[in-house]
Amino acid sequence: MKGPYKFYYWPTIQGRGEFVRLALEEARAPYTDVARTKGGVARMTNLMQRKGRGSSPFAPPFLESGKLLIAQTANILIYLASRHRLGASGEEARIAAHQLQLTIMDLVAEVHDVHHPIASSLYYEDQQAEAKKCAAAFVDERIPKFMGYFERELAHNGGRFMVGRSLSYVDLSIFQVIAGLDYAFPRAMKRLGKKAHPLRALHDRVASRPRIATYLASERRLAWNEDGIFRHYPELDR
Amino acid sequence: MKGPYKFYYWPTIQGRGEFVRLALEEARAPYTDVARTKGGVARMTNLMQRKGRGSSPFAPPFLESGKLLIAQTANILIYLASRHRLGASGEEARIAAHQLQLTIMDLVAEVHDVHHPIASSLYYEDQQAEAKKCAAAFVDERIPKFMGYFERELAHNGGRFMVGRSLSYVDLSIFQVIAGLDYAFPRAMKRLGKKAHPLRALHDRVASRPRIATYLASERRLAWNEDGIFRHYPELDR
Repeated sequence: MKGPYKFYYWPTIQGRGEFVRLALEEARAPYTDVARTKGGVARMTNLMQRKGRGSSPFAPPFLESGKLLIAQTANILIYLASRHRLGASGEEARIAAHQLQLTIMDLVAEVHDVHHPIASSLYYEDQQAEAKKCAAAFVDERIPKFMGYFERELAHNGGRFMVGRSLSYVDLSIFQVIAGLDYAFPRAMKRLGKKAHPLRALHDRVASRPRIATYLASERRLAWNEDGIFRHYPELDR
Repeated sequence: MKGPYKFYYWPTIQGRGEFVRLALEEARAPYTDVARTKGGVARMTNLMQRKGRGSSPFAPPFLESGKLLIAQTANILIYLASRHRLGASGEEARIAAHQLQLTIMDLVAEVHDVHHPIASSLYYEDQQAEAKKCAAAFVDERIPKFMGYFERELAHNGGRFMVGRSLSYVDLSIFQVIAGLDYAFPRAMKRLGKKAHPLRALHDRVASRPRIATYLASERRLAWNEDGIFRHYPELDR
């Protein structure tokens, strides 16, 4: 048996951690979501400041697997894919999957910056005027550009999976991105229409996979909220 | 012989491509910097729109190696490290190196967003007021946070290399980050004082490696300028 893993992420948001949670759930890998257990947040922040041998995370999420402590979402996903049936095996598929995942993570960073364009350390309310400007460009230019790219990649690969001929962690991540954009920017996503359709179909196929459906219906799946990365502020979704 | 590689990136800036150029140079890997040859920019943009099998890049840089087309800076560096003596061999070191590289790329994205906080598609001059606010937070909070983190990681690993007991691509990338921050934010970097010192010493050791020194003195090393990611705008460096 692979695992059990200890998974560390902020306990009240989906955020970047959710891409890892989805992979763990689809792999049916045994794991503890440490920061959601008693005293877990302190254990998480302690690990970020540990001394001595080995590298420490700059930020959550990170995964403990035996002696290894692995940080950076896309890095964790490579590791899990190498141990579980999460697709993307073989050099070419592994490289293509990671490239797509890193592009997804770039999009996720941009989504965060829409509501925090000036500084992560300031409240949204203190940068709302700038956020409105940022959101206009994000909705008009960036969402269509990223969705168009992912849609083309899906089509080139035959339309059912992002990489290879079976489900990979990239499909799980596309599910999460579509779900997150639908939550944060429902009007913008509706306007995309056909462009988003094949990605929405992929989202639906992932959502109906037995293990994912069970997870989404469980209390392990946190609700969307305005502390995470995908936030619904109607004023940013014209 | 590994290679020859075809490397693709914007021909007039260091940008993200420079992390790959440094690795290719240190590895003494044969490569063509395609977009700097005649008609090369068109060949680069064509590859981003190619149809058919295989994934396409979302953006430069990317590397062509035989049948493979590899995008995303950190993904290219994993690939090169697996084929050349660029450190980070073995599972634990490979994971640690990639984690550090992805954190470096996060910093690079933040550096870009300091001068483009509202939209990449707008001129700097059209978002200068917001950029000043963004720069204040970046200089006060983010530079010290990232530098403190990398300095601790270097110290934990013995002080000479970021990962393992020999040079890796992460050391080359730290060189580039220090050089870039020195160019863009000389006053802020000077104020860091002791915190930046071990990283600056690493920067100097990398700069004096024979292959890197030869590269830096050659015309292959592009000059810093205000079209790249690290830009010197005195008004952003209080």
